[in-house]
Amino acid sequence: MLTPTAPAPTITIPAAMLAELSRVLGTGLILDEAQRQTYECDGLTNFRAVPGAVTLPRTTAEVQAIVRLCHQHRIPFVSRGAGTGLSGGALPTEGCVVIGLARMNRILSVDFDNERVFAEPGVTNSQVTEAVKHRGYFFAPDPSSQTVCTLGGNVAENAGGAHCLKYGFTSTHVLGCEVVLPTGELTWLGSEHGVVNEPGYDLLGTFVGSEGTLGVVTSVVLRIVRKPETVQTLLAAFDNIGAAAQTVSDVIASGILASAMEIMDHTSIVASEAAVHAGYPDCEALLLVELDGPTAEVNAQMQSVRELAAKNSAAEQRLAQSDAERAVVWKGRKAAFAAMGRVSPNYIVQDGVIPRTALPRVLAQFDALSKATGLRIANVFHAGDGNLHPMVLYDGSIAGEEARALDVSYQLLRLCVDAGGSITGEHGVGREKQCEMSYMYAQPDLAVMQRVRHAFDPHELANPEKLFPTPRLCGERHNGPHREHPLVTAGIAEIF
Amino acid sequence: MLTPTAPAPTITIPAAMLAELSRVLGTGLILDEAQRQTYECDGLTNFRAVPGAVTLPRTTAEVQAIVRLCHQHRIPFVSRGAGTGLSGGALPTEGCVVIGLARMNRILSVDFDNERVFAEPGVTNSQVTEAVKHRGYFFAPDPSSQTVCTLGGNVAENAGGAHCLKYGFTSTHVLGCEVVLPTGELTWLGSEHGVVNEPGYDLLGTFVGSEGTLGVVTSVVLRIVRKPETVQTLLAAFDNIGAAAQTVSDVIASGILASAMEIMDHTSIVASEAAVHAGYPDCEALLLVELDGPTAEVNAQMQSVRELAAKNSAAEQRLAQSDAERAVVWKGRKAAFAAMGRVSPNYIVQDGVIPRTALPRVLAQFDALSKATGLRIANVFHAGDGNLHPMVLYDGSIAGEEARALDVSYQLLRLCVDAGGSITGEHGVGREKQCEMSYMYAQPDLAVMQRVRHAFDPHELANPEKLFPTPRLCGERHNGPHREHPLVTAGIAEIF
Repeated sequence: MLTPTAPAPTITIPAAMLAELSRVLGTGLILDEAQRQTYECDGLTNFRAVPGAVTLPRTTAEVQAIVRLCHQHRIPFVSRGAGTGLSGGALPTEGCVVIGLARMNRILSVDFDNERVFAEPGVTNSQVTEAVKHRGYFFAPDPSSQTVCTLGGNVAENAGGAHCLKYGFTSTHVLGCEVVLPTGELTWLGSEHGVVNEPGYDLLGTFVGSEGTLGVVTSVVLRIVRKPETVQTLLAAFDNIGAAAQTVSDVIASGILASAMEIMDHTSIVASEAAVHAGYPDCEALLLVELDGPTAEVNAQMQSVRELAAKNSAAEQRLAQSDAERAVVWKGRKAAFAAMGRVSPNYIVQDGVIPRTALPRVLAQFDALSKATGLRIANVFHAGDGNLHPMVLYDGSIAGEEARALDVSYQLLRLCVDAGGSITGEHGVGREKQCEMSYMYAQPDLAVMQRVRHAFDPHELANPEKLFPTPRLCGERHNGPHREHPLVTAGIAEIF
Repeated sequence: MLTPTAPAPTITIPAAMLAELSRVLGTGLILDEAQRQTYECDGLTNFRAVPGAVTLPRTTAEVQAIVRLCHQHRIPFVSRGAGTGLSGGALPTEGCVVIGLARMNRILSVDFDNERVFAEPGVTNSQVTEAVKHRGYFFAPDPSSQTVCTLGGNVAENAGGAHCLKYGFTSTHVLGCEVVLPTGELTWLGSEHGVVNEPGYDLLGTFVGSEGTLGVVTSVVLRIVRKPETVQTLLAAFDNIGAAAQTVSDVIASGILASAMEIMDHTSIVASEAAVHAGYPDCEALLLVELDGPTAEVNAQMQSVRELAAKNSAAEQRLAQSDAERAVVWKGRKAAFAAMGRVSPNYIVQDGVIPRTALPRVLAQFDALSKATGLRIANVFHAGDGNLHPMVLYDGSIAGEEARALDVSYQLLRLCVDAGGSITGEHGVGREKQCEMSYMYAQPDLAVMQRVRHAFDPHELANPEKLFPTPRLCGERHNGPHREHPLVTAGIAEIF
């Protein structure tokens, strides 16, 4: 665990506020210590803190009542969906109020004519597709945790998934949110009917991905998408990861918009095979390319993809021949993180983004860092949009190795930033990467974000000590450079 | 012209500030009254005000110097691109500083590998496509004014165009902006390298479409898109506009994503024919459907579109047989607004959005309003995304008719809002529709937007008295209702 540089301020929820919460929520208020402890972390388990109260509202009015009380008594609150987040976004502040939205789990209506779904935040990602698939529709964002994770969390983190290369992130598919602001006001951001391009500031875009720091979402209007006529999935095996990455660049340069392009390295393949036996070929790098759309188009484009893979010396190519075969291929990919337990006692998953063309160079830097530190680094990534998920493997039973692994994982992120990229693609900043924000952004950028935060939340009650660097947790850190002409300075652009 | 309810405060630029502007800008400072008068309005010519000074900076540093001086002396400023806006977004505040960005007109670099263009704000929309078309790319947003309007204005208004049905608005294609904040600070919003999904708040999304109220854009990173293999354009003539609208819904329900679907009514067709002789069929409603993509897909989908048009009793269908024929079809469509001069001495173009399924009902309401007021209403619209451009025809030489026409145009917008829609799709709110914002949004929505504005601009110096209703210009107006379950109350949804 990281050690804060100063102790956290003590939070005590006043008795009068607890009494009022109890009156509003009844059994939806949890004060028992053992029960509260089950909320002490999310999917990032090396940060833990126990909340002072857990609330489980069933309605927007109840959420509003909770937030108004927090505002009145200046008590911080942290909203929580299924707790599957990987950056500590739902980590409580010690002694705070947790607002768990799992009981607000109804799909309220489906409007097929306008291709919209209206739902509460505790509905799981997969349930949306379940509700519309009989009419040939699906909900596009597909984080690996989609059978468990909820819409509220998807909105908070702007969740992605393997298919956001073609279909976009959650922000593309959320058209409106009913939101309880940290002051207790109820408002709509974006459109109540899912009409495009609303006037005024696009605060919905700011809210999506704001990691719980701007308010609590109490309902959402989602866009649904028609299922494609055909889906085809290719596995191509390569002797080196550079050839797999080059194939990705070649596919994009040829004008083909694949629905997913994923790369797994040797360590990831071995771990995944040990866990789910997807029957992957034994190779240095595996490229998975999925195409969807009209059958005629997909057939023609898959032929082009196969030719490009062959040009880059693919040792083997396999096309999934059935839905069942495709499901197995994806099961192997989606299990890759959890499967690391088969090859290492512990691991840290990171989430950085780089310009796609920088892939071979950055992967070589990762490799050099691994050799220099003696810690293995496995790579699984959404190659099409340059979203890397390096995993740092370590043994927590060796004194000091967790701290070293954490340090390496942060160094990986800085390599991404140095390449013109970002410290997160889809997992969010949360508690885990807040100190790295100073490496990525110059002071004026962070100052504007903070001012916007205060427009929503003047007292910093909503998910405090997340997302932004704070002196208490990060100390005084130098900012990254503010580059005036970035494409030019990064040397990746043709100058006029 | 609308009459403000109270006189505007008088603005006088201090002599010391003018001297400093002159030192920084040299001949880029315009104080001559006749020259200043040429900046008194934009494309919405019934609102006019003369600025106190016009500045024509050539660099980011000059823009920053101008804004710092405005901030220091609390002088409002209005930034301006080509002045083609239709909602008075570039209308000066009497006596203010205009920041004209026409001289910042360089494309700085093109990065084909990552499909990005880096450009200054005074570059025209069409110039981006000109710079990349030799490699098979184009810049997708295509407002009708694209040969003249500039990127800075496109960003300010989140410009659309006929093809944003498939390709999205400007916000989809702007990946980063260098911005001078109203306080004079320089920052980047979004990504400097065009990497997707940056951490922290998506302030770029808020900035795009903020109509010049949050700062001045000094450079942009744009996404470019590969040209499709094939484009096909169909004209279908109908005896009534409801059948044309039904065809649009049927096409979308069939899963076809057209690149454009436009409808013109009889009055618009007659006007357009008189102006540009596109050879349109004489009919009650003309539907234009454009498909693009791989040839095999486009051929198959166009066959389906033609069958759907026939099912809805299209009287005639014509497929453009060459690029030249397609250009003529589009020339007629894009000339429709200007061509209204052929059938009416004056007209007001409006810009409302409705859920696509409400098209027949809302068009009938427009018709009833026309009959009740005796003012003709012509309709041209982006039917695929429900973006209407009704034109109210009037004769300005008849006393009181302009005011009546303005009133009717606002009534049309309220019908759009009542149908679950919006007061603007792509022209912006600007000066023209700021009072209608109170009809569309509840007080908490507007209050949050104002707080965000103040996070960027604590003194309201950037394009003041635009976008938001003010008591001086709008009086005290009632807010629209705040609906808790909008899809349900609007009766357009299937209840679970």
